[in-house]
Amino acid sequence: MSLPETVRLTPQPQDLAYTFGGRAPLVTVRPGTVVELTTEDCFGGAVRGVTDLPSQVCVFPYLNPVTGPIAVLGAEPGDTLAVHFVEITPARDHGVSSTFPHFGALTATHTTAMLHPPLEERVWLYELDTAAGTCRFRARHGDFTVDLPLDPMHGTVGVAPAGGEVLASITPGAHGGNLDTPEMRAGTTAYFRVNVEGGLLALGDGHARQGEGEVCGTAVEAAMRTTVIVDLVKGRGPAWPRLESDGHLITTGSARPLEDAFRISQHDLVGWTAELLDLDLLDAYQLVSQAGLAPAANVCDTNYTMVAKLPKTLLGRARAYSGLHDHLRERAAAYLRHR
Amino acid sequence: MSLPETVRLTPQPQDLAYTFGGRAPLVTVRPGTVVELTTEDCFGGAVRGVTDLPSQVCVFPYLNPVTGPIAVLGAEPGDTLAVHFVEITPARDHGVSSTFPHFGALTATHTTAMLHPPLEERVWLYELDTAAGTCRFRARHGDFTVDLPLDPMHGTVGVAPAGGEVLASITPGAHGGNLDTPEMRAGTTAYFRVNVEGGLLALGDGHARQGEGEVCGTAVEAAMRTTVIVDLVKGRGPAWPRLESDGHLITTGSARPLEDAFRISQHDLVGWTAELLDLDLLDAYQLVSQAGLAPAANVCDTNYTMVAKLPKTLLGRARAYSGLHDHLRERAAAYLRHR
Amino acid sequence: MSLPETVRLTPQPQDLAYTFGGRAPLVTVRPGTVVELTTEDCFGGAVRGVTDLPSQVCVFPYLNPVTGPIAVLGAEPGDTLAVHFVEITPARDHGVSSTFPHFGALTATHTTAMLHPPLEERVWLYELDTAAGTCRFRARHGDFTVDLPLDPMHGTVGVAPAGGEVLASITPGAHGGNLDTPEMRAGTTAYFRVNVEGGLLALGDGHARQGEGEVCGTAVEAAMRTTVIVDLVKGRGPAWPRLESDGHLITTGSARPLEDAFRISQHDLVGWTAELLDLDLLDAYQLVSQAGLAPAANVCDTNYTMVAKLPKTLLGRARAYSGLHDHLRERAAAYLRHR
Amino acid sequence: MSLPETVRLTPQPQDLAYTFGGRAPLVTVRPGTVVELTTEDCFGGAVRGVTDLPSQVCVFPYLNPVTGPIAVLGAEPGDTLAVHFVEITPARDHGVSSTFPHFGALTATHTTAMLHPPLEERVWLYELDTAAGTCRFRARHGDFTVDLPLDPMHGTVGVAPAGGEVLASITPGAHGGNLDTPEMRAGTTAYFRVNVEGGLLALGDGHARQGEGEVCGTAVEAAMRTTVIVDLVKGRGPAWPRLESDGHLITTGSARPLEDAFRISQHDLVGWTAELLDLDLLDAYQLVSQAGLAPAANVCDTNYTMVAKLPKTLLGRARAYSGLHDHLRERAAAYLRHR
Repeated sequence: MSLPETVRLTPQPQDLAYTFGGRAPLVTVRPGTVVELTTEDCFGGAVRGVTDLPSQVCVFPYLNPVTGPIAVLGAEPGDTLAVHFVEITPARDHGVSSTFPHFGALTATHTTAMLHPPLEERVWLYELDTAAGTCRFRARHGDFTVDLPLDPMHGTVGVAPAGGEVLASITPGAHGGNLDTPEMRAGTTAYFRVNVEGGLLALGDGHARQGEGEVCGTAVEAAMRTTVIVDLVKGRGPAWPRLESDGHLITTGSARPLEDAFRISQHDLVGWTAELLDLDLLDAYQLVSQAGLAPAANVCDTNYTMVAKLPKTLLGRARAYSGLHDHLRERAAAYLRHR
Repeated sequence: MSLPETVRLTPQPQDLAYTFGGRAPLVTVRPGTVVELTTEDCFGGAVRGVTDLPSQVCVFPYLNPVTGPIAVLGAEPGDTLAVHFVEITPARDHGVSSTFPHFGALTATHTTAMLHPPLEERVWLYELDTAAGTCRFRARHGDFTVDLPLDPMHGTVGVAPAGGEVLASITPGAHGGNLDTPEMRAGTTAYFRVNVEGGLLALGDGHARQGEGEVCGTAVEAAMRTTVIVDLVKGRGPAWPRLESDGHLITTGSARPLEDAFRISQHDLVGWTAELLDLDLLDAYQLVSQAGLAPAANVCDTNYTMVAKLPKTLLGRARAYSGLHDHLRERAAAYLRHR
Repeated sequence: MSLPETVRLTPQPQDLAYTFGGRAPLVTVRPGTVVELTTEDCFGGAVRGVTDLPSQVCVFPYLNPVTGPIAVLGAEPGDTLAVHFVEITPARDHGVSSTFPHFGALTATHTTAMLHPPLEERVWLYELDTAAGTCRFRARHGDFTVDLPLDPMHGTVGVAPAGGEVLASITPGAHGGNLDTPEMRAGTTAYFRVNVEGGLLALGDGHARQGEGEVCGTAVEAAMRTTVIVDLVKGRGPAWPRLESDGHLITTGSARPLEDAFRISQHDLVGWTAELLDLDLLDAYQLVSQAGLAPAANVCDTNYTMVAKLPKTLLGRARAYSGLHDHLRERAAAYLRHR
Repeated sequence: MSLPETVRLTPQPQDLAYTFGGRAPLVTVRPGTVVELTTEDCFGGAVRGVTDLPSQVCVFPYLNPVTGPIAVLGAEPGDTLAVHFVEITPARDHGVSSTFPHFGALTATHTTAMLHPPLEERVWLYELDTAAGTCRFRARHGDFTVDLPLDPMHGTVGVAPAGGEVLASITPGAHGGNLDTPEMRAGTTAYFRVNVEGGLLALGDGHARQGEGEVCGTAVEAAMRTTVIVDLVKGRGPAWPRLESDGHLITTGSARPLEDAFRISQHDLVGWTAELLDLDLLDAYQLVSQAGLAPAANVCDTNYTMVAKLPKTLLGRARAYSGLHDHLRERAAAYLRHR
């Protein structure tokens, strides 16, 4: 079989997926393929102005659509599916955000169930200026505005779950999914454990930017034009999603309560550090304790996500996954030069 | 009464405190006083080498000693006690860290009670090189070493609690205490609500550096020579400790589970932002959601601590506490020039 | 179409399901049908003696098999699927229990991730004496034995989840699933919200008895011969599973942290009480606060489950679901008399 | 020194304590002394009708007063202070309950911080009929009333904390305090670890009855006339408060999140069971898993409290604390016969 080196994936509304697992692949690619794709925003594009309240214009469970799944040729359970983000560009000149009834960190929810009526549902429209690299916040009451740095990323990236499960795309977990971490930006490589033949990668939920914790429940939600390189490492599938940037090794944990998300991410970072530096587990525990960063990713989704980061300056010559990230960075640079 | 502009406080072992509250002040100062003080490390200096196991050389409850309390003249319940960190310098050429039986984030504890025997208790000694700005990690098994940036800070800073409570110095809370955030470094101003006459500030638990989350339960623990400016704002006492650096407004929340620590810190940052920018509460919620940072402080103490940060670039001309931080920065610079 | 009043369902190993959702029904029944069925134990019958360690004789994800799904004719999303437990009888003369690596409440798990090695994996065999109504605990070390009351129940009962999700049978949630509450015994009616055409009821994980909280992670696991009456109420589907015994209204919440499971269950009991007694919500909150019971169901599964109970003596003449439970009790009694 | 066998303690308002620790004893008694005492309700008696809103008639921190402390002669750190409840009788013909702004399990609180305005503050008055053994709930909206069984108990019972801490009386912990479990009724013996000379027992917060979890934050609050026998066991102080009734061994855990309260209570019950039955720890873990009960005590206080219960029928001839409970039951019976 001959498969192209570059694939385009521009799903129509009826092609969008709302779960990880449970769907046939839209496309099958060889390891190393560049995929140019588009993603819709978490509202499916239905929130177009401040009067479009999500609870009125969106219909459960048709929220947080993802593009995919993409099957990777040769990917088998236990392998590592690598996704390198080459480019993430907002597809429209605006992004939207909102509160949503009983969703968010500072409100009663269906899980943190209380007797309060929901907070007011309110929509904010952000003007995105990709040339200037800004997204403009405009208060709904009063005339305050401020420009925030554009920092495009994907909230939702993952593979089909293990054990035959099919999970809503809003759920983050061991399969990835709605991790909602700002670390998932261009220049980053994400690693997922393959649970089913082909891995079945899907992604969506672009954010023009988001704060750590995504406290109100939504980021600056934006449709995206995104280019990724999809690759495969045989075996070595990590128990939980890992990321790698030029500067950091990054692990994730998605669970409740939030300390368990923290524990998972730190536990994986300790193990990864021990392996890469050939350290005893307690020595790695100590090193991570003094050198690590631990920002919140989201504290609003069906699981919460914490991220653990270790500066790669500590690694000396050690390289994760045999230097795959550096290799993909080079390939991405070549792609950007030659397109 | 005439009080000096600069006060020295070098407590002897018998002067050290192990609680917030419940003690008479060691010294009373006017608002604006420069205090040059020394603090012992969290082990009371008893861990001097890798064979000094904390559980053997330290005696509960004589852990985590603090220097103080310092009473501030005129401080009344509801006021804001401000502490500006001018300088924090390790007092010895080494720091220590350790695991401790049933303490830390990746081990069963007395609260997260389990049937596991404790992890191995192990001590690490770090060489501190203040000239080079490094602290050297040395693995206990194998010969791996690496230099980490020196980033001195205080884990424990607080005032007497409200309601007549006396709390162990290892507990973080609304009164401050063992917040264990790396943000408490030189150049930062911390704000605490005064609960009793004089406020009764105390501080200790210096760290040559710490990772976010302090996952193993201890940082690079170090005795410190520290200079602070202690100041007072009448009224406006924040419900939870706040910090301000040149770059960020920083709020804290200390609670369990960790999402409640997150909620407290974010709730306070939303309220503070609304107040400073004259925003509606939901508008501030939205702005913080997109622009805020949310690193873990500690996930090992009797309460966990999360920190919420907002870049001050968003503030325009608005200034917290009428620009007190800038004022204290200038005074600190003058002090450092003229000593 | 003519369907029988009584249906037998004795699935072969290859017919067993390991998820809720994602499978075609094994059988379709009319509302009101008596279903006589068999269930395998949570180990699939593979643990037959104390040397059969579950981690060796069981293969993930083939754990916690359920019998079903059973489609109910006319069941549509939003309806209430009622299951009345007529009889639950151990199918063998023994039950088994075990610790399992990194599973249970007093051990590090994959979610409450720690650096401890797993606790010892150990199996206990219980002799079940249905005539005497006992199950005999026999210590593995020493010769202590004691008879515990037999109290057969099903740990896992549920319907297909909403939103196209497919969930492992070990997960409790809004769809039911692995609630692991001892309340799910003969004489009880369970109510589930229908999420898909037919509802798709499945059940398994019989326990000869279990303690509240199922602290070690497993109960006295037993294959069962069980008779249920499956019924349907149009509309009124509860957000979370409810149970009704002769004495109590019972609500459930499954989430983490455990306080959220508590909140969900209490929130639903408050709402149910308000509706049945025509009370204002705060009045119902108050009444439940003083009269309610709140035992743990499980604190070991992928979500934790709490139960909230209100004595039906408070209800006066009010009856849940128009007295369906009483009606099913009578039908069950008739069935037992006439078989 | 000669001390009486029976002591009366009827503190005046100015004698009431609002903390555990930090106060001199009101009285010193010999082990075995009968103490007849009175306690005020958690509102200090200030809520006398449905228009007395607690947030208006009570002043922080003067909430939840306790009677004591009572020093026990010879009690030293590490000992076990035993309190047997002989009689708990409501001192008035009514009890009160209320919601309270930002307090309770189904509302945003200062810790579970959210942007919701508080729920309505509302007071309920219960008529107590000690002869009939009832307390009458009367809905505030509509005319629903129902009689609930009177089941008097103390929400707050404890000793001075360890480490020089002074804790608000509303906080439950290792020292006891505001456990808010309905198990603390007449006929029960409570065991506390002594942390300071004399132990310094105090109690208050009588409830005419409470539901498990105390979900709205308050029970049927009532001033009490209470008789206890205070006794001492040298050594063997339990890490967390234990209770014993005629039917059950009962352990407690107070922490957040609620699963940690559960873990503490179960961990202690496993250890206690192992000790009493001379079982291996995993065998005790297994036995408690199948035979234990695990009701919520409170899920509203500054720590949450879970209770773990083991039927004493399993104990054979083993007796906790050398049969002290049986002995105190006999002494109580003799006291009641002869007064």
